[in-house]
Amino acid sequence: MDKILRIDMGAPGGPKAIIGPLGPYTGMGGRGMTSMVVYEEVPADCHPLGPENKFVIAPGMVTGSAASTSGRISVGCKSPLTGGIKEANAGGQAGQVMARLGYAAIILEGAPAAGAMYKIVINAQGVDISDATPYKGLRNYDLAEKIKAEYGDKVAMISIGPAGEMRMAAASVAVTDREFRPARHAGRGGVGAVMGAKGVKVIVIDDAGMKMRKPKDPERFKAANKRFTQGLRQHPVTGEGLPTYGTNVLTNVVNEAGAYPAFNFSQGQYDKASLISGETFAELQTRRGGNPTHGCHRGCAIQCSGIYVDKDGNFLTKQPEYETVWSHGGNCGITDPDVICRLDFLDDDIGLDTIDMGAAIGVAMEAGIIPVGDAEGAIRLVDQEVGQGTPLGRILGGGAASTAKAFGLERAPVVKGQAMPAYDPRAVKGVGVTYATSTMGADHTAGYAVATNLLKVGGDVDPLSAEGQIELSRNLQIATAALDATGFCLFIAFAILDQQETFDAMVEIINGMFDTNLTGDDVVALGKKILSMEREFNKKAGFTAADDRLPRYFRREALTPHNVVFDVTDEQLDSLYNW
Amino acid sequence: MDKILRIDMGAPGGPKAIIGPLGPYTGMGGRGMTSMVVYEEVPADCHPLGPENKFVIAPGMVTGSAASTSGRISVGCKSPLTGGIKEANAGGQAGQVMARLGYAAIILEGAPAAGAMYKIVINAQGVDISDATPYKGLRNYDLAEKIKAEYGDKVAMISIGPAGEMRMAAASVAVTDREFRPARHAGRGGVGAVMGAKGVKVIVIDDAGMKMRKPKDPERFKAANKRFTQGLRQHPVTGEGLPTYGTNVLTNVVNEAGAYPAFNFSQGQYDKASLISGETFAELQTRRGGNPTHGCHRGCAIQCSGIYVDKDGNFLTKQPEYETVWSHGGNCGITDPDVICRLDFLDDDIGLDTIDMGAAIGVAMEAGIIPVGDAEGAIRLVDQEVGQGTPLGRILGGGAASTAKAFGLERAPVVKGQAMPAYDPRAVKGVGVTYATSTMGADHTAGYAVATNLLKVGGDVDPLSAEGQIELSRNLQIATAALDATGFCLFIAFAILDQQETFDAMVEIINGMFDTNLTGDDVVALGKKILSMEREFNKKAGFTAADDRLPRYFRREALTPHNVVFDVTDEQLDSLYNW
Ligand code: SF4
Ligand code: SF4
Repeated sequence: MDKILRIDMGAPGGPKAIIGPLGPYTGMGGRGMTSMVVYEEVPADCHPLGPENKFVIAPGMVTGSAASTSGRISVGCKSPLTGGIKEANAGGQAGQVMARLGYAAIILEGAPAAGAMYKIVINAQGVDISDATPYKGLRNYDLAEKIKAEYGDKVAMISIGPAGEMRMAAASVAVTDREFRPARHAGRGGVGAVMGAKGVKVIVIDDAGMKMRKPKDPERFKAANKRFTQGLRQHPVTGEGLPTYGTNVLTNVVNEAGAYPAFNFSQGQYDKASLISGETFAELQTRRGGNPTHGCHRGCAIQCSGIYVDKDGNFLTKQPEYETVWSHGGNCGITDPDVICRLDFLDDDIGLDTIDMGAAIGVAMEAGIIPVGDAEGAIRLVDQEVGQGTPLGRILGGGAASTAKAFGLERAPVVKGQAMPAYDPRAVKGVGVTYATSTMGADHTAGYAVATNLLKVGGDVDPLSAEGQIELSRNLQIATAALDATGFCLFIAFAILDQQETFDAMVEIINGMFDTNLTGDDVVALGKKILSMEREFNKKAGFTAADDRLPRYFRREALTPHNVVFDVTDEQLDSLYNW
Repeated sequence: MDKILRIDMGAPGGPKAIIGPLGPYTGMGGRGMTSMVVYEEVPADCHPLGPENKFVIAPGMVTGSAASTSGRISVGCKSPLTGGIKEANAGGQAGQVMARLGYAAIILEGAPAAGAMYKIVINAQGVDISDATPYKGLRNYDLAEKIKAEYGDKVAMISIGPAGEMRMAAASVAVTDREFRPARHAGRGGVGAVMGAKGVKVIVIDDAGMKMRKPKDPERFKAANKRFTQGLRQHPVTGEGLPTYGTNVLTNVVNEAGAYPAFNFSQGQYDKASLISGETFAELQTRRGGNPTHGCHRGCAIQCSGIYVDKDGNFLTKQPEYETVWSHGGNCGITDPDVICRLDFLDDDIGLDTIDMGAAIGVAMEAGIIPVGDAEGAIRLVDQEVGQGTPLGRILGGGAASTAKAFGLERAPVVKGQAMPAYDPRAVKGVGVTYATSTMGADHTAGYAVATNLLKVGGDVDPLSAEGQIELSRNLQIATAALDATGFCLFIAFAILDQQETFDAMVEIINGMFDTNLTGDDVVALGKKILSMEREFNKKAGFTAADDRLPRYFRREALTPHNVVFDVTDEQLDSLYNW
C-alpha cells in the first residue's frame, strides 16, 4: 500500500486518473486515511454534493494481509446528511483486494459533466475509466450480475444503487462479499450520494496476479496473529454469540434492559421482541437451511454475517444486523422476519442505509403516512417510493431527519441529522453520550458503550445513571477511531476490551506488519489524532456545542419501563473532548 | 399598549389566557419586542415546532397612533426554516387594532393537545378561546369569509392557511388589509408553521369601542407627523415610484443593473423582464380598472400596495411585490402577469412565503420536476401539491433549501436555509453582505443595500465592488432593526435616508408619542441592541461564522452580464458585527 489513486472527475475531456505516492498520508489507513484526506483537502464549508467535496476510499492499515478479521474498508467525505465529516465502514472483499493492489486510497475529486456516469476498473495493469450510462438506474444486485458476467466473481465491486444516483442523503455505498453479493454497506451519512455526485456508478477492483500483503517481520506477525485469533475464539461474544446469532443476538438483551427504542423511540420495551430475536432468526434459518455463521470477507475469525434464505431455501438477503432488525422491525411494529429481510434486501439493492431508512419509516408511521405495523406498506415505501424516486421516496430517502421535517414533526430521533440506532439513549446513557458527541452524528459504532453498559464487557457502568458515561464514551470513541484505522473489524472490540492479551496481540500484529514497537498508548494517540482532525473539520463546517446534543424531547419525555430521561448534562457532554 | 397577553396552549383543561403587565419589555415594540421575548424566554436549542418555542406577535412602538405609515406588526419565534431567531413583518390592519386594544404583545406558549385547533377572539371585553376544528384546512380567503360573516369586516384577522396547519417551513402568517383580505403576510422563515404548531388557526382582533393611541405630547407629535408626511410625499421613491407602480418598479431597475437573478440565479439579466415590469403591471391595471395605489392599512402615506384585477375587472390578488413577481416570474421564466398574480393569490390563500415558494419552484425546474417556464405546472405545484400537502408539496412547502436537498442539487440559493430574494448578491454586493450576515437568513429587508447600490439613495456605493459593502450593510441592518421596532413601514427608509429632516421628523414623532428626547444615536443604539440579542440567540442555537456565508457557488460561478462573483471576503463578513 504505497500509492494513492486520484481521479479528477471534472477534468477537461473526461475523468483523469493520477497515481501518486502517499506523501503526508504515509502510515494512515482506513478512517485515519479518509478523515485525514477530508480534513486536509476538503474546504469545510463546501457543499457535500459540489465539486469541492472529495470521496475517499481506504482499506485499513493491515487490510490485505493475513491478519485475522481485518478486511474492513473506510469511505469518507463531507456528509450530505450531517454536514460534517463522515467515515462509513464496511466489510466485504474490496478492502483486501484494493490493499493487495497497493492502493492506500482512492480519491474521487471534482464534478463530472452533467448526466455523466462512469465505471472505474482497477487492476494490476492500471486504471480504466469508461462510460457507465448503460448501468444507470440499476439496483446493486442487478449491477453485480452484469459486472460478474464481464469480470467474473473473483473481483470486488464498490457501487451505488439508484439512491446514490439520486443523491439521497441516506444513500449507501455497497461492497460485495465473498459470494459477490453487494450486501456489505458503508451505510451511514449519505456517502452513496457523494459517490453519485462524483458520477461514479461502480468501481471494479481486480487483484488477479497480486499477492497477500507481507509483514515486515513475518514471525512476530504470525505469532501475534495466532494469539489474536485464539483470543477471538475464546471470548463468549466473538467466539460464540456473534457466530451463532450474528449481531441480532442483541434484540433480547437490549429489550430486557428496557433500552429497545420501539415505535420511533416512544417506549423502551417491545412485547413482541422475541418474534424477531437472533434466537428466532437462527432457529428459522437452521430449519430452512440458511447459514447464520459466515464471514463477510475471507479471513474473518468471528463470522457474524450469516445468509438468510426463504422458506424454499433460496437466498433472500444476508442475515440482517440487529440495528436493521430493530429499525425495520421493532421500531415499526413489524414482526415478520421475512418482511424485515425483504426490507434489508431492498435497502441493499437500492443502496440505502438500513438504520436511517427504518428510522424514516418509523417517523412516517408517526406522521400517519402508513399505519404502524404495516409490513406491505413499508415494503412499498422502500421499493416503490424510495426506489423509484417519487417525491415521497425523496423525502424518506433523505432519512429520518428529512422525513420529520417534511411532515412537521418534532420527534426526529437524530443527532447532527443522522438517525439514532437501536439503543435508546435514555436507557443506555453511555451510547447516548456517543450519539451526542460523536463527530459522525448519532452512531453506535463510534463508541459502543452498550458493551459496558449492558453486556458488561470492558467493565460495568450502570446504563441508567449519568455517572461515568462521559469517560466510558470518550475512551471508546478514541479506541474506535484507532480501530477503524487499522482495518480490524469493530467486533473484535468485545475480545480486546475484556482480554488484555488479545489487545496486546492486536497491537503486536501491527508491529509485526510494519516492524514498529507501538504500545497501547500509541493506539490511543492515533485515535485522538483522528478524532481531533474530525472535530476540527466539523468546527470549521460550523458545528458547535449546540450540535453535541440530543433532541430536547429525550430530556423531556420519560422512557418506559424505567421512566428515565437523558440526564447527562450539557456541561458533561462538553467535557468529552478534553485533550 | 401596557399589557401582554400570554396564552398557554398546553394548559391542563385547554388553553389558558393570562393578561399581565409589560415588565422587562416596557418600551419595546415590533421586532424589538418579538426578538427580546424570544431571546429571554425561548431556549435556543429547542425544536421550533416543540412546546418550548414561543410565537410572539407585537405591533410597533407607535402603531395604533396617528403616526403616518406606522401600522406594521411583527411576528417572532425560533424559525423552523433557519433554526435561528425570526422576525417577520407585515402590514395590514392587525397592528393598529391590536395596539388600540392596549396589547404590546401576544405570546402563544406550550403545545396544544394533539389535533386541537383554536380560534382566539380578542376585544375590549377580553379574550375568548374556542374550538376551531371546523375551520381546519380552510384557505385564508375562505376563512376570511367565515370570520367576516360572524364578526363583520371592521375587525382584523391574523391566520394561517393549510401550509401553517401542515407546519411547512415556508408557511406564512396572514394579516387582513383594509378590505378584510388576508393579503398581507408575515412571510418569511416559517412563522406560520409555528402558529400551526401552537394549534391556533385564527386570531380575531376587534377594537370596537377603543380609541386611537394618544401621544403624550400631542402638539409635538402632530407637528412632526406633518413634516414626516410631507417628507414622504416629496421623495421620488415614496412620493411617486411606490404609489404609482408599487415595489415592482424595481424589475426594470434591477434588470438593467444586471442584478436580476433569472432562472434560479443562473444569469443576471432576463430578456423578457419588460413583460413583467411595474410599468407593464400598472398600465394593465389602469386599463382593466384595477388600482395600483392603495394602502395596506389606514394611515399609510405611501400606498404602495395596489389591487390587481383580471380582464373582467374582478379582484385577482393584491398587487404582487417585486420580489414575488421575480420569484414566480423571472426566476421561473414565467411572463404572464395573470399567472404570476394567480400564484401570488395561491400563496396568500394557502399561507406561503412568496419568496421561498417561487425560489423552490425555480429549484424544482432545475431539478426537472416541471419544465422551465411552465406556467400551468407552477400553478399546479402550488395549488394541488403544496395546497393539498402531497409529498411533492411537502418538499416544496419546505422552501428552496428543502427542495434542493430532496432532489440532490447543490444550487440552493439560500443562507441559513432561507431563500435569497430578487437581487443577485454577486451584482448587488451590499445586499449580498446582508444575506450572509443577517440574523434572519437571506433577507433583503434586513439591510436593503439595494437602495444605495442601485437606487443611489442614502449615498452611492458601487454594487459590483466589494468595497464599502460591509459598512453599508451594517448601518442599514442597524437602522432597519430599529425601524422594525417602531412600527413604521420599512419603505419610509428611502425618504429618511435621503432627507435628514424627514429622519428627524420620524424621531420626533416617537418623542412626541412618549415625551422623550431621543436622538439619532438612540435609534442606532436600539438597532444594535436588537441585533445583539438576535445574534446571541443564534449563537446559542449553534450558529457560527460558517453560517454567515453565501453558498460557495456564488464565489465560483460568475454572473452575466458583468461576469462577477461574490468576492466580499470571509474576514470582511466576520467584521460586520463590530460593536
Ligand atoms: S465479524 Fe462480521 S462484520 Fe466483522 S469482518 Fe467478520 S463477518 Fe464481517
Ligand atoms: S408603504 Fe406599502 S407596505 Fe408600507 S404601509 Fe404603505 S401600503 Fe403598506
